[in-house]
Amino acid sequence: MREEHLQEINQALTALKDRKINSIYFTACGGSQAVLMPGQYIFDHETELVSQVYNANEFVHDLPKSVNEHSIVISISHSGTTPETVNATKKAREAGAVTIAFSHEKESPLWQAAEFPIHYDWGTDADASDLNKPVFYGLIFKLLKYFTNDSKWDKCFEELNKLQDLTIITKNQYQDLATQWAKDNKRDQIIYTIGSGINYGEMYSTANCWFMEMQWINSAVIHSGEYFHGPFEITDDQVPFIMIKSIGNTRELDQRVENFAPKYTDKLTVLDQADFKLDNVVDVAKPYIAAILSGVVIRQMVEAIAYERGHSLEVRRYMWHEEY
Amino acid sequence: MREEHLQEINQALTALKDRKINSIYFTACGGSQAVLMPGQYIFDHETELVSQVYNANEFVHDLPKSVNEHSIVISISHSGTTPETVNATKKAREAGAVTIAFSHEKESPLWQAAEFPIHYDWGTDADASDLNKPVFYGLIFKLLKYFTNDSKWDKCFEELNKLQDLTIITKNQYQDLATQWAKDNKRDQIIYTIGSGINYGEMYSTANCWFMEMQWINSAVIHSGEYFHGPFEITDDQVPFIMIKSIGNTRELDQRVENFAPKYTDKLTVLDQADFKLDNVVDVAKPYIAAILSGVVIRQMVEAIAYERGHSLEVRRYMWHEEY
Repeated sequence: MREEHLQEINQALTALKDRKINSIYFTACGGSQAVLMPGQYIFDHETELVSQVYNANEFVHDLPKSVNEHSIVISISHSGTTPETVNATKKAREAGAVTIAFSHEKESPLWQAAEFPIHYDWGTDADASDLNKPVFYGLIFKLLKYFTNDSKWDKCFEELNKLQDLTIITKNQYQDLATQWAKDNKRDQIIYTIGSGINYGEMYSTANCWFMEMQWINSAVIHSGEYFHGPFEITDDQVPFIMIKSIGNTRELDQRVENFAPKYTDKLTVLDQADFKLDNVVDVAKPYIAAILSGVVIRQMVEAIAYERGHSLEVRRYMWHEEY
Repeated sequence: MREEHLQEINQALTALKDRKINSIYFTACGGSQAVLMPGQYIFDHETELVSQVYNANEFVHDLPKSVNEHSIVISISHSGTTPETVNATKKAREAGAVTIAFSHEKESPLWQAAEFPIHYDWGTDADASDLNKPVFYGLIFKLLKYFTNDSKWDKCFEELNKLQDLTIITKNQYQDLATQWAKDNKRDQIIYTIGSGINYGEMYSTANCWFMEMQWINSAVIHSGEYFHGPFEITDDQVPFIMIKSIGNTRELDQRVENFAPKYTDKLTVLDQADFKLDNVVDVAKPYIAAILSGVVIRQMVEAIAYERGHSLEVRRYMWHEEY
């Protein structure tokens, strides 16, 4: 991770010294909200702090009661111009919370709204450890070190620097799968996504952003534990699903889906994080690194299906064109 | 509400006397999890306590760290036999939490697993104030009175007793809409649901249970604030949506969807809670009563579409028949 990003993370931590923090809120919209979801998951499982994820517009219109000087509010917007996220950050700052915001655009409205803005890199030239998710995880690990004083979070932070090599290895590993999956699914009108635990957010953005927004393919995210309590009744011959199979504590939930669904559909695609080449990563960091790499594979698959369908990922019919 | 239910609620409150409560967890599966979602919403907006909703199987395999003797864990299973929910309740009780469970079946495994079981009535003969949602809201209001000492929660509790009359009035008001909607949508292969704030849970169960489970219609729940950040790109001629338009703080989010979607689809059906006949309900209770009545209307619509499609709501192909 670049020194600039580390310095901005450390700067945010200085705000905590004279405060008792009780709650951490994550707020953004769409795919950016999905980037934050693992933060809520990690805090809920590694600390006793309150932690919530909110759509930014709900946060603005219906502020949770415990947003105050004892809160940290973390937001993200790639362009830094998403009005709801900018307003949510302003509202949190007015309420006295420590506001930390991620954006690729310095001096954007979000950058100015937050007390502690943090930059991330973007594009094919960027090192993989300086993209949005790793820089976000970097903050999370530093916060966890601050709150728990457990040195395992230092190790996790260091492991983020292996992402550049791991991204290349993972892309090579999954290129054939992505291409074949795209050919097999290019005519489907609906594709469901499934995940659990730390991976739920990745499947949320796969459904809402990659498929619905960027491919106009109908989709829904299904939590692995919820699949058997309603959604599984739509499983049928040729109904396509993509599932991330976790190496974390919720693996058994995902396994149960994998045991059942293929009895009735030929189109369950499982991305098993146990297949990722993580021998070189310390055990404690593996679920986090695997969560980030899962997004790399999903992106490969989506780029492949966009090619097969002749439907560019850059095309929108309403977003950016219409008033809403 | 029947005296038996009130007594069971009050019994649960006795557990709080010698405890400092920091967190409240809601855990169940599918439609039952959806019943609990308003509890998390209300606690987040009316208290400073931590509050989370978890799928019961994720709760079992990946217990949040703050589940301990300072927690209340609330669960629900209609039959009281859902294994994940029974296990989640056992796990919470082992961790020292106050366990409160709702079930229609006394002496069921869930009833025995929880320290404080609460019964609710079911079926067409039951008074509407004794069904699962009102009895659950009854507990929530009593807890809020306990934690805030605000008498408005007593008023809200009392207003639940008006639900029997309001249910009949609301059904009469919406019968024609339900019948027409069912005729207009009976051939659709996918129907999206939209909601926000306290109503999100109702739309979650509409998608996952009413449509996917009981009608084998593809579906997904979309948060009103998230619609514009991805999902709205699938809006097109004849794509059907059902939205609850809230009378609560998130109304503006729903309004924004209503302003946009009809430009591109003829099939947005809006259930505006402002149309409900709530003159007789005190203002502070209106959003809660409206949330419950929204479920009554949704059920009418689903019963109507089941009739038009000749697809009984009792039919399952996997649930109850298969091992999973």
